[in-house]
Amino acid sequence: MASSWLQIPKESPFSLANIPFGIISTKTIATPVPAVAIGDYALNLATFASSDGFALLPAIQSHLNVFYQRTLNAFAALGRPVHRQVREYLQVILKADTPYPHILKDNATLRKQALVAMAEVTSHLPMHIGDYTDFYAGLNHAYNVGVLFRGKENALQPNYRHMPVGYHGRASSVVPSGTAIRRPSGQIVVDPAADPKLPTFSACKRLDVEIELAAFVGVGSNLGEPIPIGEAEDHLFGVVLMNDWSARDIQAWEYIPLGPFNGKNFATTVTPWVILMDALETFRTPGLEPANRESLLPYLREERLNNCFDIHLEFELKNSGGRPTIVSKTNSSNLLFSFPQMLAHHTITGCNVNPGDLLGSGTISGNVPGTEGSLLEQTNGGKRPIRLADGTERLFLEDGDEVVLRGMCGKEGGYVGFGDCVGVILPAIHMG
Amino acid sequence: MASSWLQIPKESPFSLANIPFGIISTKTIATPVPAVAIGDYALNLATFASSDGFALLPAIQSHLNVFYQRTLNAFAALGRPVHRQVREYLQVILKADTPYPHILKDNATLRKQALVAMAEVTSHLPMHIGDYTDFYAGLNHAYNVGVLFRGKENALQPNYRHMPVGYHGRASSVVPSGTAIRRPSGQIVVDPAADPKLPTFSACKRLDVEIELAAFVGVGSNLGEPIPIGEAEDHLFGVVLMNDWSARDIQAWEYIPLGPFNGKNFATTVTPWVILMDALETFRTPGLEPANRESLLPYLREERLNNCFDIHLEFELKNSGGRPTIVSKTNSSNLLFSFPQMLAHHTITGCNVNPGDLLGSGTISGNVPGTEGSLLEQTNGGKRPIRLADGTERLFLEDGDEVVLRGMCGKEGGYVGFGDCVGVILPAIHMG
Ligand SMILES: [Ca+2]
Ligand SMILES: [Ca+2]
Ligand SMILES: [Mg+2]
Ligand SMILES: [Mg+2]
Ligand code: NI
Repeated sequence: MASSWLQIPKESPFSLANIPFGIISTKTIATPVPAVAIGDYALNLATFASSDGFALLPAIQSHLNVFYQRTLNAFAALGRPVHRQVREYLQVILKADTPYPHILKDNATLRKQALVAMAEVTSHLPMHIGDYTDFYAGLNHAYNVGVLFRGKENALQPNYRHMPVGYHGRASSVVPSGTAIRRPSGQIVVDPAADPKLPTFSACKRLDVEIELAAFVGVGSNLGEPIPIGEAEDHLFGVVLMNDWSARDIQAWEYIPLGPFNGKNFATTVTPWVILMDALETFRTPGLEPANRESLLPYLREERLNNCFDIHLEFELKNSGGRPTIVSKTNSSNLLFSFPQMLAHHTITGCNVNPGDLLGSGTISGNVPGTEGSLLEQTNGGKRPIRLADGTERLFLEDGDEVVLRGMCGKEGGYVGFGDCVGVILPAIHMG
Repeated sequence: MASSWLQIPKESPFSLANIPFGIISTKTIATPVPAVAIGDYALNLATFASSDGFALLPAIQSHLNVFYQRTLNAFAALGRPVHRQVREYLQVILKADTPYPHILKDNATLRKQALVAMAEVTSHLPMHIGDYTDFYAGLNHAYNVGVLFRGKENALQPNYRHMPVGYHGRASSVVPSGTAIRRPSGQIVVDPAADPKLPTFSACKRLDVEIELAAFVGVGSNLGEPIPIGEAEDHLFGVVLMNDWSARDIQAWEYIPLGPFNGKNFATTVTPWVILMDALETFRTPGLEPANRESLLPYLREERLNNCFDIHLEFELKNSGGRPTIVSKTNSSNLLFSFPQMLAHHTITGCNVNPGDLLGSGTISGNVPGTEGSLLEQTNGGKRPIRLADGTERLFLEDGDEVVLRGMCGKEGGYVGFGDCVGVILPAIHMG
């Protein structure tokens, strides 16, 4: 990857190889606008577009309105060929030896207007999320949790390898990185051995993290029309990092038979910069089992075996006043199903999807200690504390804890990363 | 209730006592507009408002913009006192002895412009649905289904009486009455006794109906702030009738451990006219157990014991070329939890709700034969066929079957009803 005429720190997740899209505001830009992240700057695409920044990209001329909106939905709906052209065009404009320096490199006025220091930026949810679906494709996580609850023999449910198991999640409470997370309250069973079980009203005592990738839908589909597996990838807009906060005690009592509800609906944090599918092309890798395996029904078999991504993930915990601790490191290739397989499964009934719909991968864990994507797994079901850098211990999250998830691929100077996925835990509110 | 100067058929669900709100278009009104249903007419509120129809209602003057929108979300967000005033104002304008005949009764020009024959109306989804949640508060249904799957002793899960059990549903596939329903395809297990169980790809063979009430949220709430039970009712905008189409065979294979997904996400049909909460005031009645029972945690206890509605429901099935058959009749008071209890539970974690969010009650069944809210119950789990009026039999829905749900309260000449909730089953699409 070429270098940029902009100073980009070598360790930045937003190298010229990335060019992720987001929605920003600043003190002077009150109404949120689309932007791309580049090093320590955000390039305001509304200003860029209105100052003829896209003059040399004919394909986008009739769609410039997408850059004057408060979400990326309209841009996403234009489809992958357009996303690709816009991203590549911006890379050409931003590279050191750009053939078109008059557009931005040598245009001091536009540089001043359109390049905003990241330190001044407030990032917003990049898309209006019509529906959010959370899958469970992290095989190692499903296995680890299954062992905890049912033992090794029955760890995975009979359906698990046949389909990307998933459930509808709560779209309204998806929030951008940095949003503080209020500890939820609800019904928990203090003594699970009691008969009959009786719930207590309580603040959640087993508040947890789930490291996930999540994909936004770009081009939607019509009700009644499944998306064929071979076309599914082109319906995806891009990928973010996600923390699917989970109240394990609330979930354990409520989830039979209709699945997680209050245990999950209080918040889900995503990184605000969407890495486009094309930016991840060079980081493709197989998932945990072949994408075209015979055991899959044909509607889930992929021709492309590199159907997952080689993204290094880490989960950092910083207790209030303490030092940061890397709790675990894992890799996003620890998935049994890919996003195209999830989308093909989701729509096989004819369920329609819309631009901005969000698909979570499920918790991503490796299969050795130190690679777990949740505290539930790390602490062996809340029984074996982990030690933080300052010597304190944790089973689950405490008030004041700050969780930072990170994901990055590539090499120094050419990183393609998400930036931090951050949330700090606020104490439960006092009820009546 | 007074009579109207408009001719309203005695059996109309849209008597002067109702005044439900919806979104309509016609051949000449291409852009959907808000309206109320009155007898065989829809009153176009955009036209009514722009012609000074609301001149005598000062409270709405600064909010008239809500009547120029394509959904009722903005109107709903104004809150219950405004809904009440607008509905009562329209009742005054429409009653036979209206003190303000110049507004509409004697205003031939506006009558001609604003009153549209229902036969010419296309009804749309009344709200933009940000999130759709389906509860399971129909105790008799939960019991009947539990008996089928687990026997009488364990019919109800331990959590069932302690909380309104629910799950997040698919908002994108909620459709207005009249939308044809494509039979879904997916993974089903033909031989549930096989070990290991192996799925087959198939069109759904056990396509079913679920009769439900559903409430739309009016005023939303903020993330992190539970809605207290005493305030929950005022966050509700109104109620519709809902058919939560269900693919029993797809659901049976997929639902452990994360709940229903593809078995439900292909379509959910709602009636297009929203009956406001105030229109149901006189039809309040207790649910199946006291709303303030000691066994409930305090956040779910209601002071108001009449927390449900006495709405007569019926499920009619008309096979292609056949005669209509009333399959079952039941009553919407067959609920263990009310909508305010559902909303209090939904938000107890701090989950936020938005105007237009939809809450399904769960399937409503009585406890005697002929009152079941689904075919699964009617046919004893697909084992005992029901006989239709023309002598043919049914276990589950066949292609070409038309399902009509109806719900009505009150007396002839003063009915408060939903109108028909209709869907006809189209054959599964041919795959590949
Ligand atoms: Ca998850
Ligand atoms: Ca249902
Ligand atoms: Mg979540
Ligand atoms: Mg449904
Ligand atoms: Ni929406």
